This record gives sequence, structure tokens and C-alpha cells, in this order.
Amino acid sequence: MSLSEEDIQVQLDRRRPGQSKMATERKEADQVTILSGVEFGKTLGTPIGLLVANKDQRPGDYGEMSKVPRPSHADYTYQQKYGTRASSGGGRSSARESIGRVAAGAIAEKYLREQFGIEIVAWVSAVGHVEAPKIDSDTVSREQVDAHIVRCPDPAAAAAMEAEVLAARAAKDSIGGVVSCVCRNVPVGLGEPVFDKLEALLAQAMLSLPASKGFEIGSGFAGAQMRGSVHNDPFVQKGDRLGTLTNYSGGVQGGISNGEAILFRTAFKPVATIGQEQTTVDMDGKEVVLAAKGRHDPCVVPRAIPIVETMTALVLMDLLLRQRSRRGNI
Amino acid sequence: MSLSEEDIQVQLDRRRPGQSKMATERKEADQVTILSGVEFGKTLGTPIGLLVANKDQRPGDYGEMSKVPRPSHADYTYQQKYGTRASSGGGRSSARESIGRVAAGAIAEKYLREQFGIEIVAWVSAVGHVEAPKIDSDTVSREQVDAHIVRCPDPAAAAAMEAEVLAARAAKDSIGGVVSCVCRNVPVGLGEPVFDKLEALLAQAMLSLPASKGFEIGSGFAGAQMRGSVHNDPFVQKGDRLGTLTNYSGGVQGGISNGEAILFRTAFKPVATIGQEQTTVDMDGKEVVLAAKGRHDPCVVPRAIPIVETMTALVLMDLLLRQRSRRGNI
Amino acid sequence: MSLSEEDIQVQLDRRRPGQSKMATERKEADQVTILSGVEFGKTLGTPIGLLVANKDQRPGDYGEMSKVPRPSHADYTYQQKYGTRASSGGGRSSARESIGRVAAGAIAEKYLREQFGIEIVAWVSAVGHVEAPKIDSDTVSREQVDAHIVRCPDPAAAAAMEAEVLAARAAKDSIGGVVSCVCRNVPVGLGEPVFDKLEALLAQAMLSLPASKGFEIGSGFAGAQMRGSVHNDPFVQKGDRLGTLTNYSGGVQGGISNGEAILFRTAFKPVATIGQEQTTVDMDGKEVVLAAKGRHDPCVVPRAIPIVETMTALVLMDLLLRQRSRRGNI
Amino acid sequence: MSLSEEDIQVQLDRRRPGQSKMATERKEADQVTILSGVEFGKTLGTPIGLLVANKDQRPGDYGEMSKVPRPSHADYTYQQKYGTRASSGGGRSSARESIGRVAAGAIAEKYLREQFGIEIVAWVSAVGHVEAPKIDSDTVSREQVDAHIVRCPDPAAAAAMEAEVLAARAAKDSIGGVVSCVCRNVPVGLGEPVFDKLEALLAQAMLSLPASKGFEIGSGFAGAQMRGSVHNDPFVQKGDRLGTLTNYSGGVQGGISNGEAILFRTAFKPVATIGQEQTTVDMDGKEVVLAAKGRHDPCVVPRAIPIVETMTALVLMDLLLRQRSRRGNI
Repeated sequence: MSLSEEDIQVQLDRRRPGQSKMATERKEADQVTILSGVEFGKTLGTPIGLLVANKDQRPGDYGEMSKVPRPSHADYTYQQKYGTRASSGGGRSSARESIGRVAAGAIAEKYLREQFGIEIVAWVSAVGHVEAPKIDSDTVSREQVDAHIVRCPDPAAAAAMEAEVLAARAAKDSIGGVVSCVCRNVPVGLGEPVFDKLEALLAQAMLSLPASKGFEIGSGFAGAQMRGSVHNDPFVQKGDRLGTLTNYSGGVQGGISNGEAILFRTAFKPVATIGQEQTTVDMDGKEVVLAAKGRHDPCVVPRAIPIVETMTALVLMDLLLRQRSRRGNI
Repeated sequence: MSLSEEDIQVQLDRRRPGQSKMATERKEADQVTILSGVEFGKTLGTPIGLLVANKDQRPGDYGEMSKVPRPSHADYTYQQKYGTRASSGGGRSSARESIGRVAAGAIAEKYLREQFGIEIVAWVSAVGHVEAPKIDSDTVSREQVDAHIVRCPDPAAAAAMEAEVLAARAAKDSIGGVVSCVCRNVPVGLGEPVFDKLEALLAQAMLSLPASKGFEIGSGFAGAQMRGSVHNDPFVQKGDRLGTLTNYSGGVQGGISNGEAILFRTAFKPVATIGQEQTTVDMDGKEVVLAAKGRHDPCVVPRAIPIVETMTALVLMDLLLRQRSRRGNI
Repeated sequence: MSLSEEDIQVQLDRRRPGQSKMATERKEADQVTILSGVEFGKTLGTPIGLLVANKDQRPGDYGEMSKVPRPSHADYTYQQKYGTRASSGGGRSSARESIGRVAAGAIAEKYLREQFGIEIVAWVSAVGHVEAPKIDSDTVSREQVDAHIVRCPDPAAAAAMEAEVLAARAAKDSIGGVVSCVCRNVPVGLGEPVFDKLEALLAQAMLSLPASKGFEIGSGFAGAQMRGSVHNDPFVQKGDRLGTLTNYSGGVQGGISNGEAILFRTAFKPVATIGQEQTTVDMDGKEVVLAAKGRHDPCVVPRAIPIVETMTALVLMDLLLRQRSRRGNI
Repeated sequence: MSLSEEDIQVQLDRRRPGQSKMATERKEADQVTILSGVEFGKTLGTPIGLLVANKDQRPGDYGEMSKVPRPSHADYTYQQKYGTRASSGGGRSSARESIGRVAAGAIAEKYLREQFGIEIVAWVSAVGHVEAPKIDSDTVSREQVDAHIVRCPDPAAAAAMEAEVLAARAAKDSIGGVVSCVCRNVPVGLGEPVFDKLEALLAQAMLSLPASKGFEIGSGFAGAQMRGSVHNDPFVQKGDRLGTLTNYSGGVQGGISNGEAILFRTAFKPVATIGQEQTTVDMDGKEVVLAAKGRHDPCVVPRAIPIVETMTALVLMDLLLRQRSRRGNI
């Protein structure tokens, strides 16, 4: 297929920090370069190598913290797992790690959109206690999502979310949130029947994102409170295929896409790096008081939107290739 | 290590239907036979082959339903994915598929318990609207869980849950629920840093179970409403290691176990097979009314307990082997 | 596709010992049973479970040898690798392990033959110093191969090979040999470009067989002595595709099938179990004299024919599915 | 472990063309840069990113050839496999692809050498009809190998090989050869028992190298002519372990290393690119005459030495990690 750096850059730009007064102000250009796999604007079928240089690495920024494992960061667990750890900003556990996911997923997204008309749209559906439950998942678009810096397509909810974020910032604190995602026009038949069910791989993908603590598809945790007579999705004829009247299943039955919209939500905890003082201990168990310097992102969920979308694209792409190996005509 | 069929059978027996008036009454002995990999009661290091014969397969039981894709079952998606499907009881999408998981996981469990003292205990923490939030995850035991047929270790909640299940049964309906699980004494350092984070593989494992719709670890979806100053788990000295004062992280930081208890919850939807009449369509789109004959399990969560525990053991075992390949001395 | 136990049994029968006076006389029925994945004679798309019961296991047969690691067997390496080993007949290192390969590969073979007309034919091209270089790989058939018990389609060479085997047997000794294999009608495009080249996976498959010591494709080791002007295979038009005038490449270029016949050879060492006395040491280094009791197969290559063919089918099938995931229309 | 770019560069330099009058004269600096995974000269345990920029890419060099699939090159198969192909120099099928193998393998080599004293030494044992059979594999060193530009440690054979290469060059032709390799001090127990036997993975690794056509371990094809009474390697006490008196097995029994030297040979065909005119056809089947311009390497085997060594290191490293996951104390 045709592929240019611009195709990838658009999602990298949506992920980049420093886009608004709410986000961290590190200036990271995050320009992607295609190293291999593409010639004359067309993919060659061979692996595509991408490079995004890190222009703003300043180990000194983190110097003081490196002596103390930051609470709810990965400093302690990396140290114990590997017997060492990067001194600067968490190394592999840094949120910068998600750049690779976004860059690769942007390519998958383009393929899925062009070949199958698949649309993947994520949005912020909650920040702290503010929720936005009234989004129409059949029509919501990235343009609507990006209309407000918190990336919630409900303007009233978005304004309340922004206030929630700014209040957290004012308190030198951080706040969690929830990202919802819909996949439209996904062909029937994606997902492998046992361990690699579609929802299982989506759950893995979402829980592999830094700061995520929960995943639900379709009815999710609310479904645990329901009766089968309500929860079951009766079949109806929809054009030339069967569809379902309701969609408590979230587009998946038996681990396999059923042609309905795939709907899922991912919970993100509040960012661990906060300006407030925290009492903790150093590696030797000696009590210390930590307070992050500089400005830090008080809420990650707006920037998580392209990450959720592109990880979703990678999951769908993998399952599509697996299904195509079985039935070539997909 | 030493291994006998009895070691495996104990969890198969907990999974088996027909144990109570609440469950389906098919008589399945589900006796496991070790085919290979064990000699004179000791594992040989080579693959262990297990066989559980299906003694109660009656294709005829499902004959009528095979013409119509059952709502919220996998009939339709299997048919579309493979171009064919098993006529009897869902084939690979049958809940019987979990026998293999339980048998294999029972072996992993034994190893983890004997070598590391790891304890994995799951319990029913919700059925429908009845919740049991007051379980002490530091001490809860399988004996306490098994004391009541709904497998909730809080006797009052268990009684209310049983009533909820019986009410669903009386209404020829089914009801969902939530399973909580704790892993104690897990060594620090399990979990791979990017895609195979410990919580990501647990999420995959749980969402790969039939009927599961959600997963959360530690604070989970509630964490999305919290502020960082509350959610952060400060470090404290605990014996010869660092521990945390609170455990909103659920025993995992940066995708890697931190030595605290691993705590997670899995949501299960109500069983799709119900005795009530349901209006749906057949493969040709013609409207039909379906009603399951015979007695069916109105609530799967009690039987899901050993499945959740053994799948968890498989995830921990895999990650333990991966960490050991890195640092032999674990 | 349609699949019955007979489809699989035919290759299991060709593999089975006790077919001739040259082979070991253990009576093993090796009857395969399909446990899952097939219904009403058709595959369901889900995993196919097969069982071949071991009817003739007699641990006592090997009792004496179990105290001493047999020379050029896997007793010593298994003991060191796992810290234990099966007492009976080598366990997983037994030649019986190849039954699983043959059964699975027979299914792959059927698919490749029915869907693509792929023909895989192996034959014995050398036993000891007796070679059969004049086989026409464009036409050789399994019927020709099976016409003589040594499975060499050149009658004169076959007779000489049989004499070689009988001479080894008379000397209570064993003898090695070479198996050649041709794959005809393989579509262009199979093989992945770097580590999983077609010839690389064939080499892995062949060197994974017990007793194999070498692999060569096309010109093989003889190609190392040639000049490029001779070795290069010029392209010519063949029907509606390009073909090559010569086939020193063995049907593969750049790791990818080119539409010409795939031709390769596998060397097998003489069987390690011999009736002659051998001086060796036990696990404590104490000198002992070993001599195998009973009758043992003095030459494995005739029985290796179906194993080579079915392993080849598995490699081609894997690569076909991988290529189909890329380009559905193969 | 400690790791610097120099540790990697040493093998990249041995691989680099333009080192002698025999090799191609393209100037490629091939300087490696470590992008990630190393800090303050120590590995962090996380993935190590390496970059070797391609400074000398000149698509124009290959322009003329791109219209015609070069005989015994991958042009035709890539075109058919992917529906497109790189215009310049073969793209992923270029010999430059081996840079990544060498760079990664140099790291594995360093680890194996420092932690286990493993020594991996490859040398040219044949060029065309000139062989060097008398190399002492117990003592041969890289210094001896590099003493002559053909990388054969037998001075007389090396001189004859050089003459063979120069004769091929004078004839605008190319010539094949054989690389032998020994691995000393490999711990007992590496290799997985069925498909991933040590010799199987080595065979895959070697046959995945461009231009390779054959692999043999220990007795190899000569073993097919031998009797078991000669071929069997009797055990003897060697220090505190069992060893074998002979080593026809090539250091592997049952797919698992036995502590003896691992010995194998890889055959390379003559380079396909030659200055002589070759009659072939273009993609449309029209006859054309091709002759490569400029100077091309008439024999790849001297440059294949570091590639064989580093690929071998990758195989051993993988199997070591797998064995360590099983028994931590290796």
C-alpha cells in the first residue's frame, strides 16, 4: 500500500505532549523517519523500520529521584527484576515507550481503513468523577473528539473534565480517567477461539499501557449484575448479514467479532508523578520526602486517545492476518 | 517434582458441574489420566500429556438448536469464521474447553506453591446486585471459599447470593457475577516490561474465559476517579524488602510484581442459555422463538473459581520461567 | 476438508516397524484415533486432536541398560539436562516420538495435495556406500518407492542396499543412509525472507529427526565446488510463468520457492543400538561392556521415508498459511 | 554485563567488504551505534537497540538489472511473493541484511565467552576443489583464521584457495566454498528435545544465510556410510564429567549438547553475481543477455566467517536462556 511519514506522523502528533496548557511542556518533536520497507511511497511487503529520535533527553532532570524509588512508579520493580535500572526517567518504563506502539499502529490503522473501511475512534469518557455517558458510538468521529483539548466529544462534559484536571493541577496533584473506544465495520470472524479471543487480546493490549488498571467490553462490570434474558443479544437480519438488536456483547461472541461495533473501556489511574510532597523510603528503607520538580501532566487520558486507537489497530491487524491465513478471501 | 493424577483431580472436581442444586446436572466424571511426562510419580521435565475423556456427549441434546444461532452464543461467529461449526453443544466454544486449562493450571499451581509458597485464592465477590466487599484478601482460604456452594467466603453475602441464583432459576433466567482473586507470596520481578506486563497477561487470561466481560487490578475502575496523592502507594520497609503502605497498584508496578498481594477482579455476564423463550432469527433471517430445554446452570461464577485460579497459575508460571531465564537465581 | 482416520493411517502404516525382515519386530498397531476437530468426516477448523496408544510398552526390556548411558543415545544428555530421565526406551528421545509428526503431517499432506496438487515423494538414495543417483525426481512416485522394502525406486540399487543392511545385521551392527525428497507443484512464493527461509525451515525439520546428521538442498555440498557460471540457473519461459533451465538452486531462491521442484537430501547416521559389545562407562565413570539384547532395526532409512515426507508437508503448510495471511489469493 | 560499541564493531569489521583485493570494493563504514538498552557502559536488561547506517546506497548501480530478474538471485521470487520488490540491490535479500545478525550475535558471543568461556571459531575449510581437512578444532583460534585473507588457518591450503579465488575472478566468474565451525566449552544440556534440537536450530540458522546450500554436524554425510560400531562414541570419564572417546556425534546427542566440541560445516554456493555474460529472460519471457558491471566479490566464504560465528552465538544464547528457565543454576 502507499505509505508516507505523514501517515504515521498524524497520530504521533496527537500523542505528543506540550499541546495544551494541561499537558507537560517538554518539547519533543517526535518526528518519525521510515528507515526501510518502503520505496517510492509504497510498502515492499518486508519489515518497515521506523525511527523517532529522542531530542530532549536530560538525565539530569531525574538525578535526584534516582536515589529513591518513586511511589507507584517502576523504579523499584525494575531494580529488583534486572538488578539495575536506567537512571533517566524510567527508561523502558517511561511513557515515551508508547511512541513505537503509536507509530506502528498508525500503519495498521491506515491499512484497516483503506482495505475494510474500519473506523477506530477513542474518546475520554471520564475524568475523576466527571463522566460523559451520552456519546453516540455509531457516529462519534476523531474530529469531534479533538474539538476539545480533553478529547471528550460532549462539550459540557469536556468543560467539566477540564475543570477537574485544572483543580488537580492547582493542588499539585493528578487525576485518573477512562477512555472509551469503538471499532466500526470490523469484519465478522476476527479472534481465535481459546486464549487469543478478540477481547482477550484487546484486554492484554490495554492493560499493557502504562497506568491502565481496568478493561471492560460491552456490558462489562455492569453485565455482572444483569440477567440473561436482558443481556442476550437477539439476532435480526441487517442487510445481507445477521446482526443483533442490542449489543451487550460489545461486538464479540465466543471471542470472535460478530460484525457489530466493538465497544470497550479502559481505566487509567492518576499519574504517579505529582508536585505534592510524599513520604516514602529509599532503597535502604530510610524515610525520605519526595516532591517532583517542574511541571508534569496531571492527567494522561487525553494523550492516551491515539495510543488506545493504534494499539487496537495492531490487535485487529494481527487477528485479520491470522484469519486470512485460514480463509484467504477475507 | 512429584505429581499424581490426584494433584490435578482436586481442581477438576471443583470445576465439575452437578455438585449442587444450583448447577447443571449433567454427570461428568472428568477423570484425568496422565499420558506422558511423569514416571514413578515424578515429572520427567518433558511435556506432560493429560487426557480427560468426555463421557456424556449427546449430540442429540442440541439438535434442535443447531439450526438457529443461539443469541449471545458463539454459533453464528463460528459459522462465519470457519464456514462450518460443530453440531453439538458449541464444540470448542463449549465451557468444557476449560477442563484443559484447569488440568494444566493445577500442575502449575502445585509447583508455585511448593517452590515459592505462592497462594492463589479466588472467590465470588458478587452475584447480580449482591456484593461481598468485606473479604480479607490477606487471609482468605480455599476452605472458607468452599464452605458455601456459591463460593463466597462471607456467609451472609453467600446466602443472599444463593437467593439471587435461585430467583434467576425460578424465572428460567440466568444471572452474572464477579470473581475476585488474590495471589500471595509472589516473588518480586515477574512480568515483562512492554506487551507482556503481568497485569496484561492476567487480563488476557481472564478475558479468554467464556462469559467474561471485564477485568480490573488493584484500584481498577475506581482508580480512574482518584487523585494521585491518594492512589500512590508509599514505600515502607517490610522485613528484608521494601513493601508498600497501601496497595492500590494491586501488587504490580510498571507491569512487574512488587512483592505485595496481587489483587484482581473478573466480571462474568449471565449465562446465555436460558429456559425463557427468546425471539431471534435463524441463519436465513427468519424469525424463530427459542427456549433451552432441560436444566442449565443459572450462574457460572461458583464453577469459575478453579478456572480463574488455575489460569492465574499458568500466567505466573510462564512469567516465572521467563524471569528465571534472565536471572537464574529466582 | 474431508478427513478420516484412514487418511492419516496410511502414513503411520508406512512408518510402523515390523513390516519386513529387515526391521525391528515389535508389534505396534499404531492405530490413530481422531479425538476432536472433525465431525461427520469434515474438519471443523478448530484444532484436531489425535491419539495413538502405545500398546507395546515394556519398561523391563530396557531395565539393564538404564543404569548405563548408552553410547550415542540421549540417555546421558537427558539426565544432565533434566536431572532425571525416563527409564524405558529413551522416553521422549525414542523414535516413537515421530508418530506425532507423521500423523499431523499426513493431514497437511492431504490438504496440500488436494488444494494445490503438491506431491511430496521421498526415497532412499544411499545405504552405506551403496548409492542410487539415477532416480528421475520429476516422475518418481510412492508406488515405485514402496515396491522394494528398502524404499529405493532403483531396483538394482535397492537389491545392493538390502545386501548392505543384511550384512550389517549379520555383523550385529547397523548402517547409515541418505533420504532424498522432491516436492513438485509447490506454488511460487513460499518462505520468509530472513530466518524462516524455506530451506532453513526444511533444514530445521530434517535435523530435528532422530539420527539425522546432515541436510543439503539443490547442489548442496557439491555446489561449494562449482563456479557461478555453471551454478546459476538461467530463467526461461515455462507456460505462463518463468522457470529455470537448470535447478542447482533446488527450487528455492532467496529463501522463497520459485516454482521449480524442491529437492533436498538428509543424511542419517547408523542406529546407535547394536548387538555387538561396546566398552563404555556408567554414570560413575566405571567401565562396563554393553550389548543390546533382542533384535533391532539395523537401518532406519526405509522407515524414515514417511517421516521425511510428512515433516516436509508440515513445513510447506506453515509457510503456505503465512503467505496466505499476506496475500489471500494464494 | 559491560557492553560498548567496540565489542560489536570487531565482528562487523571482519564482515565488512573491501578488506582485501579479493573482496568487493564498496566502502561501507558499517559503524554501529547503540541506541538503547545500555547506560554507562552496562546493559540494563531491556532490549538493546542498534543502528548501522547505510552510507553507500546507490540505487543507480542496479538500475539496469532491475528490469530483468537476475539468475539465482531473489528478484523473481520476491516479485512473485510480494507483488513488488525493491529496485536497489535486492533490498531485504541483499547480503547487507547480515549486518543485523552479526551485530546482535556479537553481543551474544561476548556473554557466552565471559559467563561460560564458550569459544566459537569458524574457518574456511574449502574453496572450490581445494580443501583444508587438517585443522585441529581443539585449538584453532580466530588469530590463526585471520592470518590469511581467505580465512583458512592452514597456510598451504590458504594459498591454494587464494589462487582458486583469483582464477575465478580472472574468468569473471565466482566460486563456492565450505565454512567449518567449532564451539568449545558449551555446557551440557543445551537443545530442546523435539523440533528445537540444537543441531536443528543450527541447521536453520546456517540455511538462513544467503547462498548456503548445505549443513552437516559431526560425521554428517560421511556418517551415512558408516556402521554403528564405528560411529558410536563410547563414554569415558573426563575430569568431573563424562565425555566421549570419539566425537562423530559432533557434540550433540538426542538434540542436546553433551559437553564435547560442537562441530559443523556449512556449504556456500558460488556468488550469483558474475561478470560473464549470461543468457536469461526478462519478466515477460523475452531473452536477454546479462553481465554484472563493476567488481563483485568472487567468493563469499571468507566474509561469511563472522556471520557463521555470530549466528551460532545467537542459537546457543537462545537455548541457554531456555535451559536456564528450566534449571536456574546453569
